[in-house]
Amino acid sequence: MLYQGNRVDLLSIETTHPDGGSVRREVVSHPGAVVILPMLDEDTVLLIRNERPCVLETLWELPAGTLEAGEEPIACAARELEEETGYRAASLEPLLEFYTSPGFCNELLYIFLAKDLSFVGQNLDETEKIEVVPTSLPSALEMITDGTIRDGKTIASLLFFIHR
Amino acid sequence: MLYQGNRVDLLSIETTHPDGGSVRREVVSHPGAVVILPMLDEDTVLLIRNERPCVLETLWELPAGTLEAGEEPIACAARELEEETGYRAASLEPLLEFYTSPGFCNELLYIFLAKDLSFVGQNLDETEKIEVVPTSLPSALEMITDGTIRDGKTIASLLFFIHR
Repeated sequence: MLYQGNRVDLLSIETTHPDGGSVRREVVSHPGAVVILPMLDEDTVLLIRNERPCVLETLWELPAGTLEAGEEPIACAARELEEETGYRAASLEPLLEFYTSPGFCNELLYIFLAKDLSFVGQNLDETEKIEVVPTSLPSALEMITDGTIRDGKTIASLLFFIHR
Repeated sequence: MLYQGNRVDLLSIETTHPDGGSVRREVVSHPGAVVILPMLDEDTVLLIRNERPCVLETLWELPAGTLEAGEEPIACAARELEEETGYRAASLEPLLEFYTSPGFCNELLYIFLAKDLSFVGQNLDETEKIEVVPTSLPSALEMITDGTIRDGKTIASLLFFIHR
């Protein structure tokens, strides 16, 4: 353990090579996270405008959030969808899973399709600044194509859903 | 600066809120990276099997690599394509850009389409274990759908290219 953080840890791991040698490398250890693709109706997805201090930009994204200790991904998806957008989903279906940056970080994302939504009220963490924007699928696709959407998980999840 | 690593640093940044308060959060600072989508012909993409100690899996991915200090993304793309696959591209075209995990990491990826390839010989870093696998686009799409491809940048880049 090189550094123990609040949200991520920095580890040093040793890997071996075919030639018998070994090398140490740094790994960012992350608990994993969920992404939710919430469909308000057949043609309308809920996107969020998310202020991201880390990259000094407000990004267009799908709702998402980090797994809490011992939390099942589907429970996390239900919780984060409601906190960030104010909508509760009667249906949550696993869509796909992927690593965000497997060269140096073990973060795995679980993506869920959320349907049959009902509004119960947004409940943001005090550190979050999020605006919910219902967006037609053709508009979302255009926003990917023209570079407006610059978040990898959002691009991968939306294109996967549209394509399947 | 919380920790200075070889490849990434861990920083602590302060962000302010509308209510006037502020909070510190950890940010993984990354130099950025490139992804290359190399088309061997109209229908065949070069995928790689990449042993990833960080996630204890061998992943199907597109070739990729981290920017060196002062390196232009397109120069990095040419270098990494040649090192990892052994192919040199006469044409490198920017496709899209996205953040991999903007909640805690500032890594930005620059994706390039590589065409007009000629084989000059693979030149792997001694810590890399990479196998190059020419794959038809329909097969690659099937590998995304059935969960064989589990790397976010590869899913986003391939679907973007197929969809445009």
